[in-house]
Amino acid sequence: MIARCAIGSLLILSLGCANQRTDFASERPALPYSKAVLSGNTLYVAGHLGVDPATDSPPKAATDEARMMLDAFSATITRAGLAMDDLVQVQVFCSDNSLYDSFNDIYRQYFDRRLPARTFITSGTLLRGCRFEIAGTAIKP
Amino acid sequence: MIARCAIGSLLILSLGCANQRTDFASERPALPYSKAVLSGNTLYVAGHLGVDPATDSPPKAATDEARMMLDAFSATITRAGLAMDDLVQVQVFCSDNSLYDSFNDIYRQYFDRRLPARTFITSGTLLRGCRFEIAGTAIKP
Amino acid sequence: MIARCAIGSLLILSLGCANQRTDFASERPALPYSKAVLSGNTLYVAGHLGVDPATDSPPKAATDEARMMLDAFSATITRAGLAMDDLVQVQVFCSDNSLYDSFNDIYRQYFDRRLPARTFITSGTLLRGCRFEIAGTAIKP
Repeated sequence: MIARCAIGSLLILSLGCANQRTDFASERPALPYSKAVLSGNTLYVAGHLGVDPATDSPPKAATDEARMMLDAFSATITRAGLAMDDLVQVQVFCSDNSLYDSFNDIYRQYFDRRLPARTFITSGTLLRGCRFEIAGTAIKP
Repeated sequence: MIARCAIGSLLILSLGCANQRTDFASERPALPYSKAVLSGNTLYVAGHLGVDPATDSPPKAATDEARMMLDAFSATITRAGLAMDDLVQVQVFCSDNSLYDSFNDIYRQYFDRRLPARTFITSGTLLRGCRFEIAGTAIKP
Repeated sequence: MIARCAIGSLLILSLGCANQRTDFASERPALPYSKAVLSGNTLYVAGHLGVDPATDSPPKAATDEARMMLDAFSATITRAGLAMDDLVQVQVFCSDNSLYDSFNDIYRQYFDRRLPARTFITSGTLLRGCRFEIAGTAIKP
């Protein structure tokens, strides 16, 4: 009985520890990356930009771009079965440091109870003329 | 007896694999990030700068800035119960590549027996006018 | 019998979950970093550049530089017993966004069945005058 219980627990543990991998394809199949990769309980989320699907460019206002980017990032995480609050680490690349405060105001609204470790780095102008890019790692609780 | 031993080992294993999470708050509660997040045995450390608390700016000398930054980074890791030697991965962002050699001389002094994989990337001038920023991942042995 | 099977599975599980660490030294022992660190099943790969060993500089053509960099990156991963297809996350730093399409064409050739989550970031000119730098995380299947 105890042994059977041990076997049962082992199966559950194996699932948790196993490096079973699920790739979430990009909606741009021409580009060579997965939007996110779930390995075991850890989700590696690719760099996301804030571009208007109609124009494939960022919107005029930096705050709109930040919201579009965080919506897309959050959608990828949700699609993989996790939530923004599961992020443990985030990297934000930004081509203009004067946007730091307004970015923070928007970013904060995407989290509920807790905040990931974050790195905020000054980059050059990003792909498609973007001012922001975000990537991160989330862990299934 | 053997089964009881199996159950015991299972408990230890569960602790090691569990994604139990501890967030280490930033000393700047106005800013939306944790200084570090410990998930299971893995510590995700946020980007750290080298700023003088009195002025909230980097010191004049780049070497002083590097030391201040590495002291702050090391303090966060120690506070979480880990050590610099537990780092497996580090990213250094630097706005001036000519500082590479002097940075390396200082950086090396923070490690004892072993060195993490490192990426050294040329950024723009960082937040608060900093020349350096460091982030990384450490694993409890 | 069942208990013995449980013990056997426990040993295998322990190996998988343990944070046993192996450091892969850089061929530049003067520089303070490991080329890669394997912790448990996870390989943290340092930033790699595409430099000609004869000149310690990048080749003239950006496409040659990209190939040299990806060859070096792939060699490190292979040396650690993993493959490019085991990468779950990759970061590419590039000082010139106009190289994006030609980089993608070359990058894609290094993967067989699946692609990691990727972040493509605009940096300044990288160490030794390089246009590209790549780092990443791979997980042993």
